[in-house]
Amino acid sequence: MSVLIKNATVLTPRGAVHGDLFTEANTIAAIGRCRERAEHVIDGTGKIAMPGLVNAHTHVAMNIFRGYGEDLPLTRWLEEKIWPIEAKQKPSDIAASARLAFCEMLRSGTTAFAEMCLFDTKGIFTAAKQAGMRGIISRCFLDFEDPGRMKQQLREIPGSLEYGDGATLRPSVAAHAPYTCSEEILIRSKELARKRPYACSEEIILKSKELAQKKGLKYQIHVSETRQEVFDVMKKRGKYPYEYLDSIGVMDKDSLFAHGGWLTKREILLGGKRGVSMAHCPVSSMKLATGGIAQITELDAAGANVCLGTDGSASNNSLDMFQTMKVAALLQKHHYWQADILPCRKVLDFATVNGAKALGFDAGALEPGKLADVVLLERGPNMHPEHDLISNIVYAAGPQNVTDVIIDGRPVMLGREILTLDEKAVMEEADRSAADILRR
Amino acid sequence: MSVLIKNATVLTPRGAVHGDLFTEANTIAAIGRCRERAEHVIDGTGKIAMPGLVNAHTHVAMNIFRGYGEDLPLTRWLEEKIWPIEAKQKPSDIAASARLAFCEMLRSGTTAFAEMCLFDTKGIFTAAKQAGMRGIISRCFLDFEDPGRMKQQLREIPGSLEYGDGATLRPSVAAHAPYTCSEEILIRSKELARKRPYACSEEIILKSKELAQKKGLKYQIHVSETRQEVFDVMKKRGKYPYEYLDSIGVMDKDSLFAHGGWLTKREILLGGKRGVSMAHCPVSSMKLATGGIAQITELDAAGANVCLGTDGSASNNSLDMFQTMKVAALLQKHHYWQADILPCRKVLDFATVNGAKALGFDAGALEPGKLADVVLLERGPNMHPEHDLISNIVYAAGPQNVTDVIIDGRPVMLGREILTLDEKAVMEEADRSAADILRR
Repeated sequence: MSVLIKNATVLTPRGAVHGDLFTEANTIAAIGRCRERAEHVIDGTGKIAMPGLVNAHTHVAMNIFRGYGEDLPLTRWLEEKIWPIEAKQKPSDIAASARLAFCEMLRSGTTAFAEMCLFDTKGIFTAAKQAGMRGIISRCFLDFEDPGRMKQQLREIPGSLEYGDGATLRPSVAAHAPYTCSEEILIRSKELARKRPYACSEEIILKSKELAQKKGLKYQIHVSETRQEVFDVMKKRGKYPYEYLDSIGVMDKDSLFAHGGWLTKREILLGGKRGVSMAHCPVSSMKLATGGIAQITELDAAGANVCLGTDGSASNNSLDMFQTMKVAALLQKHHYWQADILPCRKVLDFATVNGAKALGFDAGALEPGKLADVVLLERGPNMHPEHDLISNIVYAAGPQNVTDVIIDGRPVMLGREILTLDEKAVMEEADRSAADILRR
Repeated sequence: MSVLIKNATVLTPRGAVHGDLFTEANTIAAIGRCRERAEHVIDGTGKIAMPGLVNAHTHVAMNIFRGYGEDLPLTRWLEEKIWPIEAKQKPSDIAASARLAFCEMLRSGTTAFAEMCLFDTKGIFTAAKQAGMRGIISRCFLDFEDPGRMKQQLREIPGSLEYGDGATLRPSVAAHAPYTCSEEILIRSKELARKRPYACSEEIILKSKELAQKKGLKYQIHVSETRQEVFDVMKKRGKYPYEYLDSIGVMDKDSLFAHGGWLTKREILLGGKRGVSMAHCPVSSMKLATGGIAQITELDAAGANVCLGTDGSASNNSLDMFQTMKVAALLQKHHYWQADILPCRKVLDFATVNGAKALGFDAGALEPGKLADVVLLERGPNMHPEHDLISNIVYAAGPQNVTDVIIDGRPVMLGREILTLDEKAVMEEADRSAADILRR
């Protein structure tokens, strides 16, 4: 397949280029004046071509819980709302939820995602394939230090590592968290929750990381989302979470840690030294009132690979990465009382090239040789004038500006129409799933 | 004129009603099953009808400075970027900037606004009339304690109080601030800026408030946006800003104070007692790194009329009130470490009925007798499922969902097409203005 975008403003790593963008098979072949003939020709006149956004931490299986039990204190929300409803989810609900998430992602310019899920991931792989998304998908190990549960997961989960096409959609290995807290939202039963501080056992963290390394896969884990969790790890292991995970060999360039809202300076330096990827989810963290600030400016300076995620729609309540970029910048400026901290160029890198690196794809930038994940933006009144293209993308743009999306060289949305999924049917199916679960 | 919206989910103050909404002249006439014949019939099937959003603090004249001099420290941004460019603005630039702002407002579901401007406001009134917006518009008094300047403004500004149609568009009186700080962005010359702490004289604040009362107009002023400003007022007046303004009789139900990021508990109680309107601008305050948190939850509980604004595009960089609603909620939850503080219902009230009250219009709610400012939202994938309609509006919706806008009973946007302005021409004209200013 080949695509030719004519006459656009192409945002390359070296600045904006006015011209064409040509993709061949799944790769960007040329930028500038392109005379190639292509299967799909898209008129980019007046539009901006930018790299697709990468959502480096999300939970698509929970998308149908958006707004369910809103504005409750965390404990009541979990115990009375999320756990009971989650326990009733069937595989078909998970697939429906994922398809809805992918429609939302495409409409908001997201081309790749990193998923963590507590259930079998087959339905998510299938839905993502259908949507034409790029991503890494894991079913989390989570044993509550229960050897029986650990054995069962060690039997079941490796099978899911065979899912995917090995190209755009890859499995990854994940452990839920050294200790969980606001991510209790993922725990299936109240009974289990009473065992807090519940944990993945050290053994399962080690075994899962080993499995990832053996298979050459990325490794995901929630770390230091809440203060309680840091306290619990300290109490049990005598170390801060990053230090603990480093001491057992889990922290390296192939690990993607989510959240990091409560890191010490020493952990930040350690994260940088190990080159770990860190997915900051500012909207979800603020909404759940976890209190901590992921010091992404410092993590970035230390050498960590900072990327951005929305977290799930249950806690965000949106998968809009434009919003996440802006809120990430706002939160750093607010926290440090410094308007010039975290310039918009950095934020855009976090959400594109850094995200792609965290997921293990050679994408996230518009230059020849890179994987062809391209988003076209229409300049609405919210994007005029254009004193600064990147500022307009990070601080002013939104899903309303996204018109076309190409993933892996394949047009998946053209002229605001999703080509890969029947959007209306997806929305109806998701609504039905949500209603059915409530009736169960 | 009459409009009939058929078969929508109508969000009334008592909850959602499935049915029709009928407007006659400029007023909502009926909600439910409406058999009236109307000039305009809009199919609301699958859509949500909600009250138009009210942007209670903005600077439309500065819209063409969006993204100019991005991510600089405040002082450099002002001295090297904003002041020089602002000094070159002509009346035609202000009108072009305003028209661009109104296109952006309509596309993001904003039907009314409160403007503060340092220049003659005629062009803004004309542009707003053309767009079909509702609003109050002021040229600020700002004398730097210079009696000559004060006299001149007292000669010039009252003339602008005759502008407007007295119905949808009304003048208001404004003083810039008891002391200014980050709003130095509005000051025309560096020379004047060197006189910091520059202030509106007490005399001009008193005279301008008197003028507002005599004319029965709303009164706007920036108060306690920055810590420096609070310090300066304390030093000069021996009182905190709200207490100082109260002591000179400026704080009442007809005053609209913007920002309020650095209030003491005593000032919050006083604001409540006086029933002052307080426009919180969370995005701009975070982006400018002013550090303070407007404690709107406490102000609301104390009895103040809390409303929301975007501030200008130069500091926001957007006029999207959906974003402002969400960020306002996030910031309170984050600040208080409390997920259930400021529920979404409250936030929506702040952005609708409270905003309308602050501006002095009987609008902001869909019920018979209210002014007919109505916005239709299409439920995209970001608004499914609908466990909670208001949560979806506040936390998940965005300009991408806005399809139709009715202001004062008149359709101004239908099927995502702005009917009152030539949007393409407006964008081109704004770009030209911005480019021309840079060349001057």
